[in-house]
Amino acid sequence: MSLDAADFDTWMRQHQALAEQTLAKVLPALEHAPARLHEAMRYAVIGGGKRVRPLLAFAAAEVVEAPPERVALAGAAVELIHAYSLVHDDLPCMDDDTLRRGKPTVHVQYDEATALLVGDALQSLAFQLLAEHTLAEEPLRQLEMVRLLAQAAGSRGMAGGQAIDLASIGHTLDVTELEFMHIHKTGALIRCATLLGALCGNPLGEAERAHLDRFAKAIGLAFQVVDDLLDAEASTATLGKTAGKDAQANKPTYVTALGVRAARQWARELRAQADAALAPLGARGARLGQLADFIVKREF
Amino acid sequence: MSLDAADFDTWMRQHQALAEQTLAKVLPALEHAPARLHEAMRYAVIGGGKRVRPLLAFAAAEVVEAPPERVALAGAAVELIHAYSLVHDDLPCMDDDTLRRGKPTVHVQYDEATALLVGDALQSLAFQLLAEHTLAEEPLRQLEMVRLLAQAAGSRGMAGGQAIDLASIGHTLDVTELEFMHIHKTGALIRCATLLGALCGNPLGEAERAHLDRFAKAIGLAFQVVDDLLDAEASTATLGKTAGKDAQANKPTYVTALGVRAARQWARELRAQADAALAPLGARGARLGQLADFIVKREF
Repeated sequence: MSLDAADFDTWMRQHQALAEQTLAKVLPALEHAPARLHEAMRYAVIGGGKRVRPLLAFAAAEVVEAPPERVALAGAAVELIHAYSLVHDDLPCMDDDTLRRGKPTVHVQYDEATALLVGDALQSLAFQLLAEHTLAEEPLRQLEMVRLLAQAAGSRGMAGGQAIDLASIGHTLDVTELEFMHIHKTGALIRCATLLGALCGNPLGEAERAHLDRFAKAIGLAFQVVDDLLDAEASTATLGKTAGKDAQANKPTYVTALGVRAARQWARELRAQADAALAPLGARGARLGQLADFIVKREF
Repeated sequence: MSLDAADFDTWMRQHQALAEQTLAKVLPALEHAPARLHEAMRYAVIGGGKRVRPLLAFAAAEVVEAPPERVALAGAAVELIHAYSLVHDDLPCMDDDTLRRGKPTVHVQYDEATALLVGDALQSLAFQLLAEHTLAEEPLRQLEMVRLLAQAAGSRGMAGGQAIDLASIGHTLDVTELEFMHIHKTGALIRCATLLGALCGNPLGEAERAHLDRFAKAIGLAFQVVDDLLDAEASTATLGKTAGKDAQANKPTYVTALGVRAARQWARELRAQADAALAPLGARGARLGQLADFIVKREF
């Protein structure tokens, strides 16, 4: 391991811990009614996942020297949206999955109605976080955060991507259609995490923001290509969720559309695009570059 | 009909139409993908309901001379949260209802997965509305709107009330427990609609805001008591949804807890509390008073 890699590893573990602590702090306490719902919300959110979205927010915050406590809350808001989407995606009427991050899914551990409400309440909590703390120099920029998160989560973002995904089951999608789906389903929230992190600090110029946006879009797609590769190749044990699920469900993926070799090549190309977008940011973009490497290379 | 009543009737129809137009305008157009999701979102929202929450926002706006176009958007945001909650409440894992506002419920007309995503996307859209238009004199007050709506919708508001409602099925609740449930399930959003309308205009003093808040809390509860009375007494045709559903589901209501006569009395008492809270606002609170009369007396 190079020195850089060791440094990144420390940074990642520290910021994953900060993300985890922040989530634990902002979730409603069990002493508040309804206790069972609040318990189930914690079950859905705490102790799982690599926290890629909060990490992106923290890394983007290094571009603008943003205070970590603000970024932690902005990142937590994005992560709550992500967590809610997993709870709803796992429901019987969607992917009907029983295992998530090595644990029974929320509707298995509790019940379907509770899982539905957990997702609904986590979404509300995400927007609450963006509104009840000071997260940016100007309230207008904080409203911009709310708008970005709402768009990324909504029918022309993540929820829309889910709808396209459902409609695509059993159909053959070409790479363009697949990309359209993933830009919405996964990409929108990844992009949002990066932009929110950057809104917590010093204002970026228009050109710099465009670079960051291009980076976030490339890495959002790369993330999905890698996810498809992992799903096709990894074992259930490594993944902590049911592996090979996409193929079983006859879902189109980058692996079914391109084959493993070309999908890996595509992930590397997107990584190169992300690199190119970061270059004009110089040293301030170094952490984002390390994180992009981690995202594209994880498990390979 | 007195002149006042005729005036209120005209006001109500005008503002219901404005609420309806606003909802139609802010819902994503069908030419945007995913078209089926956007069609289902419209199906869920347009052409139904008395739009009580937007009406409350419009009436509260008269206290502070707020521009109607702002209030229309704030009211639409609250109505979108209400509409999403109905879609999710009707799902088989919740109330399993097939009829809503005289039409098949969303999961019957489309499918369960679509209904789930419709609700999820409507919630996101509500927060988007509060962030992408100028709705208050100060961005900070607009962030306050986001916070109020998120709290009203979340686990310590409407979603929490749903969870308490589900847990209460088959149990006997006393009036205090029933009230706790309804303050969350229905009252939180009614209160929020009123406060959001008032945040669109001239700033209120702390005392005035407290009066408005007391009014909104009383009327929120009265609304639920009346709803329980309607469910117990009205026919399915009048109601546009399956009547007698609460009794069938063995759900505790004000009618089961108090009986019809005492429930009616309780509705009148809450109306008197609302009146008392409005008194210090003088003529500026007149529209809210008329609306409160409409809410408590509807169908009686």
